[in-house]
Amino acid sequence: MFEQLGLIGCGLMGGSFALALKRAKLVKRVVGYSKSPSTTERARQLGVIDVAAPSALLAVSGADLVLIAVPVAASEATFKAIRHGISADTLVMDVGSTKGDVIEAARRGLQDQFSSFVPAHPIAGKEVAGIEHADAGLFTRRQIVLTPVKATLRSNVQRATQIWTAVGGHVLTMTPEAHDSAFAAVSHLPHLLAFAFINAIAGQPQGASFLALAGSGFRDFSRIAAGDPTLWRDVLLANREQVLRQSQAFRKELLQFEALIASGDGQALERAIDNASRTRGRWQPAAPPSSD
Amino acid sequence: MFEQLGLIGCGLMGGSFALALKRAKLVKRVVGYSKSPSTTERARQLGVIDVAAPSALLAVSGADLVLIAVPVAASEATFKAIRHGISADTLVMDVGSTKGDVIEAARRGLQDQFSSFVPAHPIAGKEVAGIEHADAGLFTRRQIVLTPVKATLRSNVQRATQIWTAVGGHVLTMTPEAHDSAFAAVSHLPHLLAFAFINAIAGQPQGASFLALAGSGFRDFSRIAAGDPTLWRDVLLANREQVLRQSQAFRKELLQFEALIASGDGQALERAIDNASRTRGRWQPAAPPSSD
Repeated sequence: MFEQLGLIGCGLMGGSFALALKRAKLVKRVVGYSKSPSTTERARQLGVIDVAAPSALLAVSGADLVLIAVPVAASEATFKAIRHGISADTLVMDVGSTKGDVIEAARRGLQDQFSSFVPAHPIAGKEVAGIEHADAGLFTRRQIVLTPVKATLRSNVQRATQIWTAVGGHVLTMTPEAHDSAFAAVSHLPHLLAFAFINAIAGQPQGASFLALAGSGFRDFSRIAAGDPTLWRDVLLANREQVLRQSQAFRKELLQFEALIASGDGQALERAIDNASRTRGRWQPAAPPSSD
Repeated sequence: MFEQLGLIGCGLMGGSFALALKRAKLVKRVVGYSKSPSTTERARQLGVIDVAAPSALLAVSGADLVLIAVPVAASEATFKAIRHGISADTLVMDVGSTKGDVIEAARRGLQDQFSSFVPAHPIAGKEVAGIEHADAGLFTRRQIVLTPVKATLRSNVQRATQIWTAVGGHVLTMTPEAHDSAFAAVSHLPHLLAFAFINAIAGQPQGASFLALAGSGFRDFSRIAAGDPTLWRDVLLANREQVLRQSQAFRKELLQFEALIASGDGQALERAIDNASRTRGRWQPAAPPSSD
């Protein structure tokens, strides 16, 4: 049981973490802070946080658990702002979709408190953002990736594992590098492709009439294109090297498909599609998705 | 009320059409034929068809309504096989995802009976194929695109509209060219991208471990990659000109995204994502998807 969660960023992820902790009876008091005072106030009104703090530093003062749930580009400023409120006993975590850049931001921002920080990425979310959608069940049966580094306190990694397990997550641990290359492939690349796909269609003179005919295949394929622009700008830039590498590998594969189509090589085209179809048919989510 | 539906191709689409017609009490008898005798027999055992015919010609003999529900590449041979069983009173339809090529196949195959043919594309389907998944509700609230040409009998277009409306569909009519360019953009292109995406990931040394980490965004984005290889080979080849045009437009857009990421131009990147996010956020399926 923690005495106080200091929550920086009262959005979907931060709010859901606070609610999940409360439901699991893991925390006595949640003190929250968001850049926008009206968001912080709304979180308090909704009962997601108990106390609205006027600054990030005040939100973490006295907290034995801190969650940073801000856009990844705001990580360093946030770590700097809270540094003097962190003690050797505090467990600090984040929820960022990229890990290498957040770890560097934490190293610079937290300085001698860096060992308290356990980098975390819950593979969970919704297409809708904001505290109104916070959900105590958001992490149920979802994968939670922790990417501790050499300096990270082992005891904090253990505590982090216990917390995420208690709110229903499946915890796995890997290096930040392995995390960032894997998620460039299975998360950042599909988002990039979905954004480019929608803009490529919408940019055509008949784009609107094309879109009016789209069915359920389009609906599912393009769902992630509705993602939050600020969040995804930050993710694509933070992990740019791996994202560009994946995008290039994808374009190479697409060109091979185009060549098979242009040459009318039905046999090779069917083999290529069959390969994709079998791979996708075999795929199972590591943790069964929740019903959101 | 039709006396007899001659069904060529007892798969998901053909079987669903037969069941939907029966449920709407639009047909007295369904005579079915599939290339594989065991499929035809299975359709009879399941009650989807009433009589198993030993040939396509025998399935359409005496039928006042014919549905061709075979892979688009098999269209011409099918039209040729049934030509002598078609009379001036028969309404012939197909369910192919491409229209220009099927119309040419019908022109060559049906010859003087070509005017009986109403090209149709129900925007409906499931990831699973086969007669076992046939579903009388498959067309409920789905769009049904008819692409009649000059020679098509107006009375048959009217009858086709009545049938599809009676089984729950929303009928719209357009030229085959408009159909093929629109579906290249909103259906064939996303399938192509999903196939290339899966193969690009799976082809990497760490591909399997990457895929094991994928979440719900990946799940939805890549669902259509599990599509039927023969069907999609045929569609991509049949509509190759429009598909290649769309793929090239997509690659151009993707390269622009890559340039923004590589140069670190956060403002322009956010604008581009915002554009995609708003477009996708506003999008509504023309007909609300059914619950499959």
